[in-house]
Amino acid sequence: MARLVLKFGGTSVADIDRIRNVARHVKREVDAGHDVAVVVSAMAGKTNELVGWCREASPLHDAREYDAVVASGEQVTAGLLAIVLQAMGVNARSWLGWQIPLKTDDAHGVARIGDIDGSDIIRRFEEKQVAVVAGFQGIAPDNRIATLGRGGSDTSAVALAAALQADRCDIYTDVDGVYTTDPRIAPKARRMNKIAFEEMLEMASLGAKVLQVRSVELAMVHKVRTFVRSSFDDPDAPEMSDFDNPPGTLICDEEEIVEQEVVSGIAYSKDEAQISLRRVADRPGVAAAIFGPLADAGVNVDMIVQNISESGEATDMTFTVPSADLAKAVDVLEKTKAETGYDAIQSEAGLTKVSVIGIGMRSHTGVAATAFKELAKIPVNIRAITTSEIKISILIDSDFTELAVRRLHSVYGLDKV
Amino acid sequence: MARLVLKFGGTSVADIDRIRNVARHVKREVDAGHDVAVVVSAMAGKTNELVGWCREASPLHDAREYDAVVASGEQVTAGLLAIVLQAMGVNARSWLGWQIPLKTDDAHGVARIGDIDGSDIIRRFEEKQVAVVAGFQGIAPDNRIATLGRGGSDTSAVALAAALQADRCDIYTDVDGVYTTDPRIAPKARRMNKIAFEEMLEMASLGAKVLQVRSVELAMVHKVRTFVRSSFDDPDAPEMSDFDNPPGTLICDEEEIVEQEVVSGIAYSKDEAQISLRRVADRPGVAAAIFGPLADAGVNVDMIVQNISESGEATDMTFTVPSADLAKAVDVLEKTKAETGYDAIQSEAGLTKVSVIGIGMRSHTGVAATAFKELAKIPVNIRAITTSEIKISILIDSDFTELAVRRLHSVYGLDKV
Repeated sequence: MARLVLKFGGTSVADIDRIRNVARHVKREVDAGHDVAVVVSAMAGKTNELVGWCREASPLHDAREYDAVVASGEQVTAGLLAIVLQAMGVNARSWLGWQIPLKTDDAHGVARIGDIDGSDIIRRFEEKQVAVVAGFQGIAPDNRIATLGRGGSDTSAVALAAALQADRCDIYTDVDGVYTTDPRIAPKARRMNKIAFEEMLEMASLGAKVLQVRSVELAMVHKVRTFVRSSFDDPDAPEMSDFDNPPGTLICDEEEIVEQEVVSGIAYSKDEAQISLRRVADRPGVAAAIFGPLADAGVNVDMIVQNISESGEATDMTFTVPSADLAKAVDVLEKTKAETGYDAIQSEAGLTKVSVIGIGMRSHTGVAATAFKELAKIPVNIRAITTSEIKISILIDSDFTELAVRRLHSVYGLDKV
Repeated sequence: MARLVLKFGGTSVADIDRIRNVARHVKREVDAGHDVAVVVSAMAGKTNELVGWCREASPLHDAREYDAVVASGEQVTAGLLAIVLQAMGVNARSWLGWQIPLKTDDAHGVARIGDIDGSDIIRRFEEKQVAVVAGFQGIAPDNRIATLGRGGSDTSAVALAAALQADRCDIYTDVDGVYTTDPRIAPKARRMNKIAFEEMLEMASLGAKVLQVRSVELAMVHKVRTFVRSSFDDPDAPEMSDFDNPPGTLICDEEEIVEQEVVSGIAYSKDEAQISLRRVADRPGVAAAIFGPLADAGVNVDMIVQNISESGEATDMTFTVPSADLAKAVDVLEKTKAETGYDAIQSEAGLTKVSVIGIGMRSHTGVAATAFKELAKIPVNIRAITTSEIKISILIDSDFTELAVRRLHSVYGLDKV
């Protein structure tokens, strides 16, 4: 017998029929003798509708009122799933954030989870009662509803799993796991059985949109074993009852991954733009003078490359921003030219960042060289490179995205056999 | 400066534009210096959608889960109205039932209001903050959301007005007041300036669907001056700023009504059915044997007429039920024939109950005789009569509904001049 938190997203609860399907997944785990808490999102489309009304009411709106409006979507789903579960003979009740209580800070609209009191829910596990928890919401210190920001139900689920000391947090979604790369552009992509928290964090933030980044961070900090699986699988298929090895991808501590590959996956992010500042004065404080105003303007700067200057007087500074922010970034840079004292701005949109990710890199050399060689064979021009302990990111022209991803996927031995 | 509770129903908050119109009504009162609390219903159609989902989830559903689902409709409107008010420069915040708290009993789905703690709201009146309260909901002793039953927002508003010791509770609706009868069938119907609680109670329960009966009862008990007015009136029209005499109908204590008419209004209720039990044994307990099983079956019995039997052995018993319940009622009566021992059942649908209402009746004689004479002139056959202190109800064929209502309206001097 285990303790499980199951989380179902908006497409999984889009209507009553889909909610019935979710209930069958829940019932399967209950029938197997597990303690179950379920975290649900709003029915697909509902959150957008509610957010749209808030914007129509006023483009600038009080985040506390936004929270009261938008959190209602999850409230509805929680009640409906409890009703369906009861109709199937499963003891269940809904819990809203303020009822648990799931406490947050006071950053309404983008609140962070503080303390969760799981004692009531755990007590009811003894009566085999399933807790159906409205995701995405908690209660702030002002006794008002706070939401966790878009996609926050993943975070709710992981935080609840930590509070309940659950054995696993199963995230049911519209994909059946985490792949070595995007299967839409690389048909040989494989579903991973396991991936380390750190790797998933890189995959998530690099555009593999399976899980919210914050939820993975939280899972890593609290060591919550998090399992990504499909809500579209038949709930009663025989392989679904294989508790220790159902279809999907387990995100876990690296120690739990016995056969660690050197490279685990290839991620990519399109719509990047590159900005180069020519002959920037090479003196202390200049980087702050460039990136401070960009941050203030809400521009998300990513790869930063600065060469050592020959003369010691001036250097070139290159970095990337999302294509959508390019015009704003250039505008900010031109306005601050006096402080930064560069000669010229050059910029280019239509670029892609391809990333090679793997915890094994820490103990293997030559991983980067393999990537560079493979890209040279195509040939693809490398515009910028950044590296971390477990990741190499390479900026290339977007035209080569698919080709580069497929070739890197292949050269690191990730292709499906 | 006064303290006001304003209530707006579903059609008044059907979309953001309508909510903006509501906000203009609120702003007018705030600008006039009044303390204002606003009670809102769900946007038109939303409650039906939510109730529909609960039924689709399971025909028999846990009322506690139903409450969590359905109460979300008012939650959304409250947040949206607060946003719109803030955008107009009005200090406002939303309040959910559990935040006030508005405490109810544990009859989920049809809860009755217990204690309301208005202290937080009153404290914020000092900062000129408008309280935007989600109607129709409170918190039950189990710390879960409870709803008050359909139309419960009227009751929320009146109860809140009592708790806040408000000077008036303005119910904004899609009609502009209470009329002496239905203007759709009697064009000479007049809007009343004032009506006593007791009269309104008869009007409400007799089919003048302006206000929920429970809210009128509550207003009467707590002497809450309740004003029925239209949310479709231009919020900025000059007559709307006439605080003491705006367009609408005040429901108040009879003492506040200086020129009390003998008859205040004519109400009617179509779709009544009559059941006569022939030769019912005339002995103690027989009425209980008839009406007990009907009540258990949920049949709402209205007018009951029993004649004194000639022989002392058997009598005829006549009563009315809604036409929709006729088949069920007959079925129940046939099953219990052994206990009640009647000879035959006769029944007829397609009847109308016309009622003459007026507090002045208590001190005037001949009111009933006037009605009977007028109906005889048509001529309309009277099938049954019941009376109370302030009401005479007469059962007639539905074909004569409009004619009878117009003639009674005229004979009691209610026609518009």
